[in-house]
Amino acid sequence: MNGLTGTGVSPGVGFGPAFVLDWEPPVPEPGAGHGGDAEAERARAERALADVAADLEARGARAGGEAREILNAQALMALDPGLATGVAELIDAGASAARAVYEAFGAYRAMLAGAGGYLGARVADLDDIRDRAIAVLDGRPPPGPPSSRDALDGPPGPYVLVARDLAPADTAALSPDVVAAFVTEEGGPTSHTAILARALGVPAVVACPGAASIAAGTPLLVDGAAGTVRPAPPDADVAAALGAAAGREAALAAAIGPGATADGHPVPLLANIGGPDDVEAALAHGAEGVGLFRTEFLFLGRSAAPGEREQEEAYLAVLDAFPGGRVIVRALDAGADKPLAFLPPPRPEPNPALGERGLRLLRAHPEILETQLRALARAAARSRADLQVMAPMVATAEEAAWFAAACREAGLPSAGVMIEIPSAAVRAADLAAEAGFFSVGTNDLAQYTLAADRQVGALTGLQDPWQPALLDLVGLAVAGAAERGRPCGVCGEAAGDPALACVLVGIGVTSLSMAAPALPAVRAALARHSREECVLAAAAAVAAGSPDEARAAARANLPGLADLGL
Amino acid sequence: MNGLTGTGVSPGVGFGPAFVLDWEPPVPEPGAGHGGDAEAERARAERALADVAADLEARGARAGGEAREILNAQALMALDPGLATGVAELIDAGASAARAVYEAFGAYRAMLAGAGGYLGARVADLDDIRDRAIAVLDGRPPPGPPSSRDALDGPPGPYVLVARDLAPADTAALSPDVVAAFVTEEGGPTSHTAILARALGVPAVVACPGAASIAAGTPLLVDGAAGTVRPAPPDADVAAALGAAAGREAALAAAIGPGATADGHPVPLLANIGGPDDVEAALAHGAEGVGLFRTEFLFLGRSAAPGEREQEEAYLAVLDAFPGGRVIVRALDAGADKPLAFLPPPRPEPNPALGERGLRLLRAHPEILETQLRALARAAARSRADLQVMAPMVATAEEAAWFAAACREAGLPSAGVMIEIPSAAVRAADLAAEAGFFSVGTNDLAQYTLAADRQVGALTGLQDPWQPALLDLVGLAVAGAAERGRPCGVCGEAAGDPALACVLVGIGVTSLSMAAPALPAVRAALARHSREECVLAAAAAVAAGSPDEARAAARANLPGLADLGL
Repeated sequence: MNGLTGTGVSPGVGFGPAFVLDWEPPVPEPGAGHGGDAEAERARAERALADVAADLEARGARAGGEAREILNAQALMALDPGLATGVAELIDAGASAARAVYEAFGAYRAMLAGAGGYLGARVADLDDIRDRAIAVLDGRPPPGPPSSRDALDGPPGPYVLVARDLAPADTAALSPDVVAAFVTEEGGPTSHTAILARALGVPAVVACPGAASIAAGTPLLVDGAAGTVRPAPPDADVAAALGAAAGREAALAAAIGPGATADGHPVPLLANIGGPDDVEAALAHGAEGVGLFRTEFLFLGRSAAPGEREQEEAYLAVLDAFPGGRVIVRALDAGADKPLAFLPPPRPEPNPALGERGLRLLRAHPEILETQLRALARAAARSRADLQVMAPMVATAEEAAWFAAACREAGLPSAGVMIEIPSAAVRAADLAAEAGFFSVGTNDLAQYTLAADRQVGALTGLQDPWQPALLDLVGLAVAGAAERGRPCGVCGEAAGDPALACVLVGIGVTSLSMAAPALPAVRAALARHSREECVLAAAAAVAAGSPDEARAAARANLPGLADLGL
Repeated sequence: MNGLTGTGVSPGVGFGPAFVLDWEPPVPEPGAGHGGDAEAERARAERALADVAADLEARGARAGGEAREILNAQALMALDPGLATGVAELIDAGASAARAVYEAFGAYRAMLAGAGGYLGARVADLDDIRDRAIAVLDGRPPPGPPSSRDALDGPPGPYVLVARDLAPADTAALSPDVVAAFVTEEGGPTSHTAILARALGVPAVVACPGAASIAAGTPLLVDGAAGTVRPAPPDADVAAALGAAAGREAALAAAIGPGATADGHPVPLLANIGGPDDVEAALAHGAEGVGLFRTEFLFLGRSAAPGEREQEEAYLAVLDAFPGGRVIVRALDAGADKPLAFLPPPRPEPNPALGERGLRLLRAHPEILETQLRALARAAARSRADLQVMAPMVATAEEAAWFAAACREAGLPSAGVMIEIPSAAVRAADLAAEAGFFSVGTNDLAQYTLAADRQVGALTGLQDPWQPALLDLVGLAVAGAAERGRPCGVCGEAAGDPALACVLVGIGVTSLSMAAPALPAVRAALARHSREECVLAAAAAVAAGSPDEARAAARANLPGLADLGL
């Protein structure tokens, strides 16, 4: 068997025997009916879907971080009322619960599959719910990959997980100790497999034709940057590849200490975290503090907002990990894809991402913000960390002023705002008059600037963080902040791309916050380049006419990246 | 009875006897059941809703223009599958079709009403569908306002239509000959009553407490700018108010000929049209051409795309009305709130406004664009108008280049792009290298720039076209166009506000396109101010920190507006 090539979506080199996840989910027979008691059968189907949702949430809670968000979203799909109605109608027409689930999900699946861009992400998630629900109805747990090597025959050490496609529930609970790499026949760069692989720091190749035909136990050498999968490679090649990867990692690890350019311009390197569980990884990767502390974990999946004391303890758990360091807490960012049960019933917004979310929702429910700010002020008073608070989804200077006043009222003097709406970047000088600091959220800012939904795979090209328009808006935000002497950091995905991180520093960004595993590469990339080189790389990127040109132009000005294998 | 005050949403003065639309729709008795044949009852309910949808579409087709779009959207609500499922479930549980419609719509209504901002628009539309469907099921047509004065007792001349709230279907078929003004107790500036009143050129006051208690036949003097309603005013007051209004209209009418500032700087004043039916109003108000010819009317509500010849004739009907004039045709802008039956099934996009719409959809279905462009080229060859074509929803220079190539291929040399996505404004110079002209769509541009859904009433403040960030982006678009010597017009609602029109000219916009009734006031406002005054007004607006400050600062620099009563 020759080598296979797919899309590398999580860099690094992994080697191990293939563990092939080739469970073919059972297909309930066409025409399979129930005993005649439609009501009881409907209840069975409902319970099975509720069980699946609860199981997904529990897996997410165990995994923490990004996995929790993804699995919670999948749990919501399992409880979709439209799907439930479809299932109930089929049962009323005589179908068994399992067959009804199969057919109702099939109809929805066909619609999603026709949409192209969703294929990688949503169809796999939907199929996974369907198969899990049918397994529950059949009284069998759905098989998944082993979560430890003990359960497997063959040599010790991590395995390469191979599958047609992987569900978030399968991958969320794994760790680099158990899995050397992921290889899937389907999926894409925006699939959940790709996102979770990056979060876990496991190399991954997706959209890899032929992967599903790999025999179990085949030794595989996977390069998650090049997108290659070599079956049964000679030992010497394995040693060379792993050696090169280790050298690269050593080079990255050699850059330690606070973030700075080669000529000593300091650029604090901070971590994005989703709760106290993420602190360990942040510290392990040398985060100098927290640039984005998402607080939704305290609120999601609850029937009432958490009390002031409970919040205080949760915040303190994070603050205490960074004595003397900076911890920037984002006020509750609910709405859109993060609906909360205890805020008024989700209104049928035609475009939730353009609706009443973030600060807009907090203004409608000021008691929630007040409690959160009081809890933060109490935690800050008990900690040696430098706690700062920022507001999500700020569009205007008036909103920034409102938030800053609420923070002052609660005894929190340092109030900043996220720059994630184009108007906030364009009028940054107005906002800087009201807010103490900026943090640019490049993911949402790209979504609005290009009018391209983050959740729609077909629009991935428009969401590219190298879009010159996005770089221009970051430049406007930096300039507006500078007019008032305010710092302007970046906490979106862009900050974790080593080349783009250098460009952002060249544009004038004052700190970078990212998923913890990205910190070493960014630290090493900055340490190899002077501030002047960063400025030149930024100028070259902004002068380009497309994301690809911008990326190439910047890299041409950042020679140290190649030395680092980045 | 003292005078009433509400929100003036359509300017002008109207006087006439109150015609009170106080039909209380019948409420089917709780517990009302059907004869036992649930299937037949479900079919009755489905048929009633389908009849209502068909009636709404027919009324829209007769009214044309904006009314057609609004009524088509309402017809889609009547066919909502979620509502249909709710109705069917209630019938299965034994309810009569009428009661099932009442309850199912009630549940949805409660959700909408809780959303606040929607109250004005969506709840009224939903109630209207419910009441019409119940009337159909009861075998009675729902009463509406008389469409001519002949049917009424009392003095001749137009009446003032008074109601708790008005449905688009009630107002769409009326004309200023029949109705002197609208007054409603509910509704808001973004309600359909407000939009249709402006389109009809009829004064309107909404959100007017006490309006529903006005006795039928009461003579009413309505000022749609001030938002006042005076019952039984003295004859002298009526004469004075009508005289002042007539004087204002005369002043507006005195400005004739091509649009230009007081010092002769030409600003072509064009009309936005939705089809050949709108040409008459455009000509009547002195449009120098068409700045936005929406072509969706040819495609909506059809099972297949119209053929090349059919399209050619429809385009020619518009072109022939403007010999020697400019007609800018926008290529099909489908998707989001304008789904087309013959494009693949509407995918479940989480945020349609940020999804595959406009040019993105045309790139996925190039045959539709090719046919449209060929039809336009054939029509252009047969006409003496200056036909230009522009693309909707362009985000990048690459997209602009793709569209321009498609136009050249079809033999259309003049291809422009809408500037309605922030990235297009920010990188306008890149886009100007590919496109022959720009037309700024301020409505969508505001929606994306402020990340505030146009359809969500609660976010109206963010969508204000006076938002300084929006003015900044118009400035960037103008500057990018100027770098390449390209014209940059505006075709969004902002162009129809006389003060804002002067500001846009001051920013450097080269033409203004608007709903036809807005043309005289804009023409008069420009004729009263020099280009230099417009530049100063623009500078004052851009220097402001909020929409209200911007509006006030601009008006302070535009003294001629007050002279015109604008």
